[in-house]
Amino acid sequence: MERLLIRNARALDGAPADVLIENGRIAAIGESLAQPAGAAGRCTTEDAGGALLLPGLVEAHTHLDKTVWGMPWYVNKCGSRLVDRIDNERQWRATSGHDAGRASLALGQAFLAAGTTRLRTHVDIDTDAGLRHLEGVLATQAQLADRLDIQIVAFPQSGVLDREGTDALLDRSLREGADILGWLDPCAIDRDPAASLDVMFALADKHGCPVDIHLHEPGEMGVFTLELMFERIAALGMQHRVAISHGFCLGELDERRRDAMLARMADLGVAVITTAPPSRPVPAVMACRAAGVTIAGGNDGIRDTWTPYGAPDMLERAMMIGLRNNLRRDDELAVALDCVTYAGARACGFAEYGVQVGARADLVLVQAGNAAEAVAAHPVRKCVIAGGRIVARDGVLV
Amino acid sequence: MERLLIRNARALDGAPADVLIENGRIAAIGESLAQPAGAAGRCTTEDAGGALLLPGLVEAHTHLDKTVWGMPWYVNKCGSRLVDRIDNERQWRATSGHDAGRASLALGQAFLAAGTTRLRTHVDIDTDAGLRHLEGVLATQAQLADRLDIQIVAFPQSGVLDREGTDALLDRSLREGADILGWLDPCAIDRDPAASLDVMFALADKHGCPVDIHLHEPGEMGVFTLELMFERIAALGMQHRVAISHGFCLGELDERRRDAMLARMADLGVAVITTAPPSRPVPAVMACRAAGVTIAGGNDGIRDTWTPYGAPDMLERAMMIGLRNNLRRDDELAVALDCVTYAGARACGFAEYGVQVGARADLVLVQAGNAAEAVAAHPVRKCVIAGGRIVARDGVLV
Ligand SMILES: [Zn+2]
Ligand SMILES: [Zn+2]
Repeated sequence: MERLLIRNARALDGAPADVLIENGRIAAIGESLAQPAGAAGRCTTEDAGGALLLPGLVEAHTHLDKTVWGMPWYVNKCGSRLVDRIDNERQWRATSGHDAGRASLALGQAFLAAGTTRLRTHVDIDTDAGLRHLEGVLATQAQLADRLDIQIVAFPQSGVLDREGTDALLDRSLREGADILGWLDPCAIDRDPAASLDVMFALADKHGCPVDIHLHEPGEMGVFTLELMFERIAALGMQHRVAISHGFCLGELDERRRDAMLARMADLGVAVITTAPPSRPVPAVMACRAAGVTIAGGNDGIRDTWTPYGAPDMLERAMMIGLRNNLRRDDELAVALDCVTYAGARACGFAEYGVQVGARADLVLVQAGNAAEAVAAHPVRKCVIAGGRIVARDGVLV
Repeated sequence: MERLLIRNARALDGAPADVLIENGRIAAIGESLAQPAGAAGRCTTEDAGGALLLPGLVEAHTHLDKTVWGMPWYVNKCGSRLVDRIDNERQWRATSGHDAGRASLALGQAFLAAGTTRLRTHVDIDTDAGLRHLEGVLATQAQLADRLDIQIVAFPQSGVLDREGTDALLDRSLREGADILGWLDPCAIDRDPAASLDVMFALADKHGCPVDIHLHEPGEMGVFTLELMFERIAALGMQHRVAISHGFCLGELDERRRDAMLARMADLGVAVITTAPPSRPVPAVMACRAAGVTIAGGNDGIRDTWTPYGAPDMLERAMMIGLRNNLRRDDELAVALDCVTYAGARACGFAEYGVQVGARADLVLVQAGNAAEAVAAHPVRKCVIAGGRIVARDGVLV
């Protein structure tokens, strides 16, 4: 039996905490745990030196396949409309020697080094690239499986209705390893929201898989799409199976209408995943939580043809969520941390999660006094434990 | 004569660049400069290893005296209104053993280690603390004078009209070392904008000093204050002597009204200093520049009783400016860099600035391919040169 005993850590409530890990699971949590006496097999001890103990971080929305992380700087000269960015990327992929396997592995490893142990990535599926991106990310998923739990969303970045054959490719993706059906702006991109959503829900129903939709649509357009979705979720019994990524429109409504929308989302178990971009209206974290809607955090793309920004660091993303939502008190920053830990795991459906006995032993030690300091200062991760093993120290994979 | 020759750097335009520094000034810039032959005194050579050469970074708006940087984490339980935060801070200062000299020195040194060589700090002046904060920051200013050029703004954080004696304290501050008169929300805090601004401009006129006002006032209230200011600037000949910090109201106007305001500001030489907060409306960087208004970047407070966030890193602030203004192309990110370099120096009136012969030799070497990468990745500063001397390597003071 393989054992790891972490000593001298502090829990989020400030209490001293030791953690005993056996065969990749948390076996005990408590103050001053003793090494199991006379037990078979070896037990390694790790002195946390008073560091704060966090559960492994959760990235609920990224695009591992698109990144140039670890590669030469991509010079961005792209126009500013959504369609400009989609076209620009499709051209770049076709001409740059882009390799989704290499890209996703480099970024996945960087996430792990910064303490992320569960991650949902959208993977481009379209009629130009076919399943090439999926194959690359599946290879990364397999390679990192014992350390980084990767969920794959089959994502039609170029839309579905206008590009014949895309729905068949999504269907194949879900047979060949994708876990979740992605989608994109049924009004703004597909131009036929009812038809678009009918195709989406039919595919999800066929595969019995969850849905995670990119909804950039602003104001009333986005609200209309949400309403069409709510009707179908109720009719098809898709409760607790749908996540809205971005949902910018929810940031534009007055409080009364917003809260009415959130109440319906809570009823239907629809989660929200936010990147908290500083330049867009965003769903308010506190309002979502008050309404009973799970809201999780994600980076979206990191250093790709869409954006030069981003870092595979979920504590930094929690800081961005805090900044965007004007969270300043320590108890508020603890909520930002929740978006990239427990709420992230709930929104994505990651099982056996958290600092609790029986969970997969995914843990992060960080030199901070409490959750608020971990978010605001987001110091280099002192130690990352994934699947019960130490995988990184001081921000570097071991 | 003291000489430093920097070799193998690259200029912002990508060209190879060597820099010869003599007696703290830039003496020559060019490709493959030779060591001055037979010159008196020694010449040290620094190999930049192909790093990007930036001018010393400029922090146009911070509060060195308020920070808890380098001290134990401050647990924030404060209410969310502006007056709550002002009262909370005043109480904390009175009871915490706060030392403005120690605080400002710790944060000033951290700024320097990250490549900031020019800095404008607002220093609290009020009837509780008197000139205690000013004295502390003056000591830091003197201690760092040959490395970090600090401008001090005498700032009435608790307002002026309601607290008798504040105007006299500001008057004393400007005699005893403060360089600039600060002010705060003439409507929202002082409750009598015409009287408040009359006191402000009379003090500035008496001391012949510039003005830098914190203007948080939203919407029409802020616009009204700006109009009252414009009238007085024109009447008193205060053109090119006034900076608006924050100016949130400028981010709330429709484009036509905004541009009309900006045109008047350009005429009067009024600069804007933005922290680009993700949760507030902000003056649009590109609109300001298009109108001919100088806009610079600042952090505002860093880890204090107001905010848990912030880092003394002007490249990270440039990234926040880029994110808030949705700047994504490489040429747009170069504008974000300008806000914390040349435009910052112009807004604050720092002289002898920049990568040019004759300027004070304040330089930063950073491992990045161009301005955009320096902003988005904001890597640890490889080398910081201030006043002609190497003061930091790899983010640590030497
Ligand atoms: Zn996305
Ligand atoms: Zn300020």
